[in-house]
Amino acid sequence: MPKTIIGVMGAGEHATPLDLQNAYELGQRIAEAGWIVLSGGRNVGVMDAVSRGAKSRDGLTIGILPRINSAMSDAIDIPIITDMGNARNNINVLSSHAIVACGMGAGTASEVALAIKARKRVILITEDLQAREFFRSLNPNLVSIAETAAIALEQLKVILSTQK
Amino acid sequence: MPKTIIGVMGAGEHATPLDLQNAYELGQRIAEAGWIVLSGGRNVGVMDAVSRGAKSRDGLTIGILPRINSAMSDAIDIPIITDMGNARNNINVLSSHAIVACGMGAGTASEVALAIKARKRVILITEDLQAREFFRSLNPNLVSIAETAAIALEQLKVILSTQK
Amino acid sequence: MPKTIIGVMGAGEHATPLDLQNAYELGQRIAEAGWIVLSGGRNVGVMDAVSRGAKSRDGLTIGILPRINSAMSDAIDIPIITDMGNARNNINVLSSHAIVACGMGAGTASEVALAIKARKRVILITEDLQAREFFRSLNPNLVSIAETAAIALEQLKVILSTQK
Amino acid sequence: MPKTIIGVMGAGEHATPLDLQNAYELGQRIAEAGWIVLSGGRNVGVMDAVSRGAKSRDGLTIGILPRINSAMSDAIDIPIITDMGNARNNINVLSSHAIVACGMGAGTASEVALAIKARKRVILITEDLQAREFFRSLNPNLVSIAETAAIALEQLKVILSTQK
Repeated sequence: MPKTIIGVMGAGEHATPLDLQNAYELGQRIAEAGWIVLSGGRNVGVMDAVSRGAKSRDGLTIGILPRINSAMSDAIDIPIITDMGNARNNINVLSSHAIVACGMGAGTASEVALAIKARKRVILITEDLQAREFFRSLNPNLVSIAETAAIALEQLKVILSTQK
Repeated sequence: MPKTIIGVMGAGEHATPLDLQNAYELGQRIAEAGWIVLSGGRNVGVMDAVSRGAKSRDGLTIGILPRINSAMSDAIDIPIITDMGNARNNINVLSSHAIVACGMGAGTASEVALAIKARKRVILITEDLQAREFFRSLNPNLVSIAETAAIALEQLKVILSTQK
Repeated sequence: MPKTIIGVMGAGEHATPLDLQNAYELGQRIAEAGWIVLSGGRNVGVMDAVSRGAKSRDGLTIGILPRINSAMSDAIDIPIITDMGNARNNINVLSSHAIVACGMGAGTASEVALAIKARKRVILITEDLQAREFFRSLNPNLVSIAETAAIALEQLKVILSTQK
Repeated sequence: MPKTIIGVMGAGEHATPLDLQNAYELGQRIAEAGWIVLSGGRNVGVMDAVSRGAKSRDGLTIGILPRINSAMSDAIDIPIITDMGNARNNINVLSSHAIVACGMGAGTASEVALAIKARKRVILITEDLQAREFFRSLNPNLVSIAETAAIALEQLKVILSTQK
């Protein structure tokens, strides 16, 4: 029986302190719910913070790495090495039951767009009003907004209960 | 000496009549400039229209196809068969000297975002104000707006002269 | 701390009864050693048998699936959905600390070749003498032969102790 | 109407003088036949030699490059930048109407195997008897042997006439 996998996306080097705090707390709450965290796997930004949060609650973490020599987060249990750069973003999205984006940037935007394209549910935790409006306009049924990690987790529970 | 390749992105089945008209004219103008048109290669929407426009002016056309059995536009000279679905969007972007998006949608949004991530110049021909504002906010130096195919071509000439 | 991942490759629909028996036993032994089994994830052939073997010993199993709608083995815990067909074979290889091939065929041959290209250690459990000779000729230092799953496991222990 | 594309594969840094000579002549003959040469696109080995041969006869050349910063052959007209390393080998194979391998090595072997998997016709120009026997054993209907570039071209003509 496959486990439930939640993809958490966000900036690497350009993540803000608030993004990192949200990602860490989200990792904790996803692990407490018994789900697996999937991220881009590098040792920076949201990828690292969400994985460390999950490990602090004994969760399992998957990192979909862009390169053979990518510097990996210490908090990754299962590194999947794609060696395909940002084309891996599509794998991140397809392998997750639902996606949460902490913050925004070009890479994160590509993942949110690919998720909508794949008809996956996406939760945005971002103060970027333009991002909220744009992605909601692409598909309001798939994209929701959460102000905090706690609210995102409540939304995930509803989404996952609907999928089953 | 590698040829100049312009990537033209846009919706497939959901393209509007205006998108198709812009794409067809853009294909004509790109071919007249002596450049190659690169698209997603299928026989629908912007991909098909831009390729047909280019062929009407004896241009060369590349189609980066998602599947082995994808229905291909009759106007593609060089089909590159990736069999990797939307992960091919990153190849579209990386292989183009600059990108023009005709219209907007989730797939197109992923390509624009990946282009910005790869630090490619992007021109948007779209009436979607939320898309314009969002992508301009991601990187105003890389993203410009064109009202018509003719204006997009003038912008491309400036961009390409700067790159050389 | 990333876990140790062993990639087990082999035919799908065309696996022989001996391949399936070897794969099942290999899955059991890899799980008993505390390692993770990685396979192509579908519900046929060596992929399915090695995953079921691992689950019979409470192991963890990863399946790198070719398509969104691939029929997945019931014994997969962590499905990674690539949607990139046989291009995923490179991900299988890069994500594994070492590779074992049970039997031989065109897909398996591509994975063994990609493993050698990536300088990974490969163990062949196959009676196909031409395959043994050919792959040994490509790189005798990376490719070894095992007559049984038990011998393959002894070889894996030596390989992994050397890598640390 | 899509053009006919012939994929020519072979070693990069480890190509032998005979491989390079065969590849150069093959490029000339493919161009003379009016077909396009597709290769891995880098500025070494068989990729470079076949592309230079084709350009010496005014042929068109496609290079499927592994990386954004790959050093490209000067003889490539159309660079397709995949940024996905050896996973691009599957694109090389799928995009070609038929494949010719000049020489042998791990990367070339992966392409021949992927070609057989995709049910493409493959011609081997190699003195490596183990490679000949192994790949012929995988599928004797798809794999043939040519002693020279001239013979390979005769075989290609037969193969392509059958496909139409």
